[in-house]
Amino acid sequence: MDYKGRQRRLQESLDVNRLDMLLVTHLPNIRYLCGFTGSAGALLVTDQKNVFFTDGRYRTQARAEVQGCTVVISKKGPLVACAEWLRANRSRRGRRRRIGIESEHFTVAERSRLAAILPSDSLLRSSPALIERSRMVKDAEEIEQIRSAVLLGADLFDVILKTMRPRVTESEVAAELEYAARKAGAEGMSFPTIIAGGKRSSLPHGRASEATIPSRGFVVCDFGVILAGYCSDMTRTVHVGRPTSEARRIYEAVRQAQQAAIEAVQPGVTAGEVDQVARKLLKKSNLDRYFTHSTGHGVGLEIHEPPRIATGQEEILHPGMVITIEPGVYVPGKFGVRIEDMVVVTERGRQVLTPRPRE
Amino acid sequence: MDYKGRQRRLQESLDVNRLDMLLVTHLPNIRYLCGFTGSAGALLVTDQKNVFFTDGRYRTQARAEVQGCTVVISKKGPLVACAEWLRANRSRRGRRRRIGIESEHFTVAERSRLAAILPSDSLLRSSPALIERSRMVKDAEEIEQIRSAVLLGADLFDVILKTMRPRVTESEVAAELEYAARKAGAEGMSFPTIIAGGKRSSLPHGRASEATIPSRGFVVCDFGVILAGYCSDMTRTVHVGRPTSEARRIYEAVRQAQQAAIEAVQPGVTAGEVDQVARKLLKKSNLDRYFTHSTGHGVGLEIHEPPRIATGQEEILHPGMVITIEPGVYVPGKFGVRIEDMVVVTERGRQVLTPRPRE
Repeated sequence: MDYKGRQRRLQESLDVNRLDMLLVTHLPNIRYLCGFTGSAGALLVTDQKNVFFTDGRYRTQARAEVQGCTVVISKKGPLVACAEWLRANRSRRGRRRRIGIESEHFTVAERSRLAAILPSDSLLRSSPALIERSRMVKDAEEIEQIRSAVLLGADLFDVILKTMRPRVTESEVAAELEYAARKAGAEGMSFPTIIAGGKRSSLPHGRASEATIPSRGFVVCDFGVILAGYCSDMTRTVHVGRPTSEARRIYEAVRQAQQAAIEAVQPGVTAGEVDQVARKLLKKSNLDRYFTHSTGHGVGLEIHEPPRIATGQEEILHPGMVITIEPGVYVPGKFGVRIEDMVVVTERGRQVLTPRPRE
Repeated sequence: MDYKGRQRRLQESLDVNRLDMLLVTHLPNIRYLCGFTGSAGALLVTDQKNVFFTDGRYRTQARAEVQGCTVVISKKGPLVACAEWLRANRSRRGRRRRIGIESEHFTVAERSRLAAILPSDSLLRSSPALIERSRMVKDAEEIEQIRSAVLLGADLFDVILKTMRPRVTESEVAAELEYAARKAGAEGMSFPTIIAGGKRSSLPHGRASEATIPSRGFVVCDFGVILAGYCSDMTRTVHVGRPTSEARRIYEAVRQAQQAAIEAVQPGVTAGEVDQVARKLLKKSNLDRYFTHSTGHGVGLEIHEPPRIATGQEEILHPGMVITIEPGVYVPGKFGVRIEDMVVVTERGRQVLTPRPRE
């Protein structure tokens, strides 16, 4: 991965954002910038150099992974270590240093503690989400990583089809799925597996439970893996037994809404416009009031990242963005249907990454 | 669970903490107070009543789970919904309302956004960690839940012993372990499984990787499950092949340090004193400089929660606290050993929850 290029571009963007430094504490952002995959650390990006702070547990790992940064190991926690480094490395120009914090990830308590120990020439400023903006557009190497994760994830659908039958619990299906994922080399699941059958399929976030698969009805299966840090995300809704005509009608409406939204994905349109395409199609079937969430979201090092494909979102789609398209219809207490694929925006339109049929 | 009692005790503690209300946004705290297990919501606890805000995805689930609160479903996100509720329910007394936020969990950006939309009679104040303090001491029902999680987790060690052999990858061992966990009814793992063999055992947080189990050497196995929301946490270090006398000596030193720290656990001692017992014993063998982390931590709805069993921690242990005791020795680039059990503080001392031998 092009860690040094990412760091350099971030350094170049500091000045226009009226910052002298950026303190990066959100772990996926740290991984994106310097390659560190551990769970404790902070990265100070300055116009001169970059310094990564972590603790003794990560000494060996930080030395092996971190690129383009000086590594500081400290017993006192990364924020204290950072304040000490700032004290030892005063500004030469004698003016105040504006240090950006990632306000969407930095807690009120962390801000108070850090402010109390910073040297007097340092000021904390909430930074715009510079790294998230950069992460939205994936480079070729990232897209290939994501593609590998998506393919591994999609293969797991066979495991679901093989395992799922009436009286097996949702958890058992999830267990087989997650076992197969690990065996195939996944680092883990990208979120708690959703296997939601019968009435539970009307819960958009119905985690696999001890409930059994119904002898007749929908089962929503939403699952994803992490491979080399990158996430996959996929939903298929299967029907056990013979579907009613209402079930057929609703499934077909969701499928068409999803297909239309996928076809609407191209450079230059806004995320909100893609969302509207799915919503309008469901409105035709008078099902839009049961579509209670957004149409999709970005996926990468995090399972949910910008852009949001939702009503009113004015983010413009660019080549290299990787998003989900996942409309759903949930009739409370009755059943639900959701179909989800991952899509990469290309120069000429889009490419669906998820290889599975949706019929 | 005694949700209403927990809410009442929190309500009673507001006044002495100079708060009129507390806005609870940390999900484990929400679950602890009202039973909601979903992933989006906010709970406003006032001296009069409690209101839970969530979105349409959780309509059915919130109605089924949430106890002791009015449930408000909103399209606009829980913080906006909360601000609107505060606007519609002005203070009768005409004075300003002090609303506590959980500053250890509330981000700087959330605070700014919330402050911008609050009615003028409302002031945000950083609250002490009232709910975490309350959660530190578990009631009998919680201890039984934790015991069930610990027993389920400990049974998985058999799977490790059965699976682990030279040339199998760490990931494969983790896959078998996690599969067995799910099959046994676990909701998931309480943290990414650590299987770290050979030199990798010297990484205190060596997640299971594609590295193979060595034909001779230590393998650190640290794993836990979630059952009914409660976490387990356990570490065993096994030795493949015949150990060297140095390996034997170090393992025995860690075992003794762990045993001594366990025996030091009792009501009235501080967390720091327990930590010191382990550290002093390792010092005797001149191994204390390789013990690079704290001796333990609280476990409950979260895998890491107060109290911290670490140098200088003055928290006094009380009956009902559930903690880990897990000293370790890590010789960089060579090998590592850690042994971890969960322990509940009792009226008369302690009870080790983890049923496995450590020899």
